[in-house]
Amino acid sequence: MKTTDLSKFNNDWYQPGSKVKKLLWYFVNVLVLKNHFWPHSASKVAILRAFGAKIGKGVVLKPGVSIKYPWLLSIGNHSWIGENVWIDNLGFVSIGDHVCISQGALLLCGNHNYASSSFDLMIGEIHLEEGVWIGAKCTVSGGVRAKSHAVLSIQSVASKDLDAYSIYRGNPATKIKERTIKA
Amino acid sequence: MKTTDLSKFNNDWYQPGSKVKKLLWYFVNVLVLKNHFWPHSASKVAILRAFGAKIGKGVVLKPGVSIKYPWLLSIGNHSWIGENVWIDNLGFVSIGDHVCISQGALLLCGNHNYASSSFDLMIGEIHLEEGVWIGAKCTVSGGVRAKSHAVLSIQSVASKDLDAYSIYRGNPATKIKERTIKA
Amino acid sequence: MKTTDLSKFNNDWYQPGSKVKKLLWYFVNVLVLKNHFWPHSASKVAILRAFGAKIGKGVVLKPGVSIKYPWLLSIGNHSWIGENVWIDNLGFVSIGDHVCISQGALLLCGNHNYASSSFDLMIGEIHLEEGVWIGAKCTVSGGVRAKSHAVLSIQSVASKDLDAYSIYRGNPATKIKERTIKA
Repeated sequence: MKTTDLSKFNNDWYQPGSKVKKLLWYFVNVLVLKNHFWPHSASKVAILRAFGAKIGKGVVLKPGVSIKYPWLLSIGNHSWIGENVWIDNLGFVSIGDHVCISQGALLLCGNHNYASSSFDLMIGEIHLEEGVWIGAKCTVSGGVRAKSHAVLSIQSVASKDLDAYSIYRGNPATKIKERTIKA
Repeated sequence: MKTTDLSKFNNDWYQPGSKVKKLLWYFVNVLVLKNHFWPHSASKVAILRAFGAKIGKGVVLKPGVSIKYPWLLSIGNHSWIGENVWIDNLGFVSIGDHVCISQGALLLCGNHNYASSSFDLMIGEIHLEEGVWIGAKCTVSGGVRAKSHAVLSIQSVASKDLDAYSIYRGNPATKIKERTIKA
Repeated sequence: MKTTDLSKFNNDWYQPGSKVKKLLWYFVNVLVLKNHFWPHSASKVAILRAFGAKIGKGVVLKPGVSIKYPWLLSIGNHSWIGENVWIDNLGFVSIGDHVCISQGALLLCGNHNYASSSFDLMIGEIHLEEGVWIGAKCTVSGGVRAKSHAVLSIQSVASKDLDAYSIYRGNPATKIKERTIKA
């Protein structure tokens, strides 16, 4: 049988930004976003914009958030990023308007090709459309699009697209019912 | 189809305590309870009591615990709160005698009405009765009562009541067997 | 019915190291390994070795890792320990060559006998053989051996051994397919 050889891993092709920018952001992320002593949201939004994130109005970031690369992030209007949410955006992540990402959720763009001996890095974008709700401690994998107003229930794992106005649960998440919004 | 409008979200009706008390506790929680450099349990119990928590004797808090509002918390005698446990008690949480909450578990009282356009906040109490064990990285939702000596297995999600002397697993957790305690 | 009595809990038999060594390591772990301001991997490997861990060459530790007792840890060559991985090794943990443990995973050696009134501590070793991949936010229980090149998918829970070259998912994890590695 073939074996994995992590010494052969090579992600030189992956260049998400200059070394200086990445290093600087690494420490700003730890010092400001992840820091529970810094609960003030608007200043964090301003810092993210300064590093290239596109962020609309009325966006709230709770404490303990971690974002890999702001310049690969777009957030619409009136969306909420909950406490300890981890946006591990090796790839581009778009978050639409009126999206709620609850506490402890993980958006995970990176993956590995377990069928290759060199365990190649694979990156997928994540798109959360308008009105989506990602529940507490959920994980969304790279390549997933959660369509308009989809809901992922607590601690579930989305590895495929989520249909609009649909509620999902489990690992892997399966559709359990429709979402109907009343007045 | 109706859409979510988070700019209409309004939780003014929710008044869990004075602003000063909430702000002060916020920083004490980060500085003391969540702080891994502060492993000493008895001092944390004393601080929680000073902020209104009812806590019995022989209670142990491991490092990294986070508690939203101590004045909405009651813990009996000889119960253990594990490392990095997150008691997000927007509503009242009662923890009985001889309860073990293992590392990384989440008690999540807050929820949202995903059927309302304004995504209204919904809060449920959580009650863990005598002898209950909540396993590592589990989540217990608001409104749940874990009855006497119920067990929730590792990384499971309880969104309904757990029967006494019963063992649950999965997301959502289902009963897998009885719990029998020998001498 | 018999009840749990945590005041009778007694783990005096469990002596994983001298008090001084345990206390010193506790603070080094918090100050260095768990500290996101300390991303430099090689220095962490050196410190772990100084505390008795056996670690091969080419091993990478990401920030935020937590290890209970380095002297109960062995890591082979070219293995990766991801961000916020928690090795709660009350028992011995061996990690082979070319193993990847992804972000937020938990290796959990400790357990309790829920059938005993005194909730006795139970400890199991964990062995991850060559080429194993433990996915993000997974939990591996004590007593588990993940055999050569097994894969545990995102946020899954392994409470039994994992077969070689097999892919597992869910809670509890079940085998979903074979892993075939191409050139």
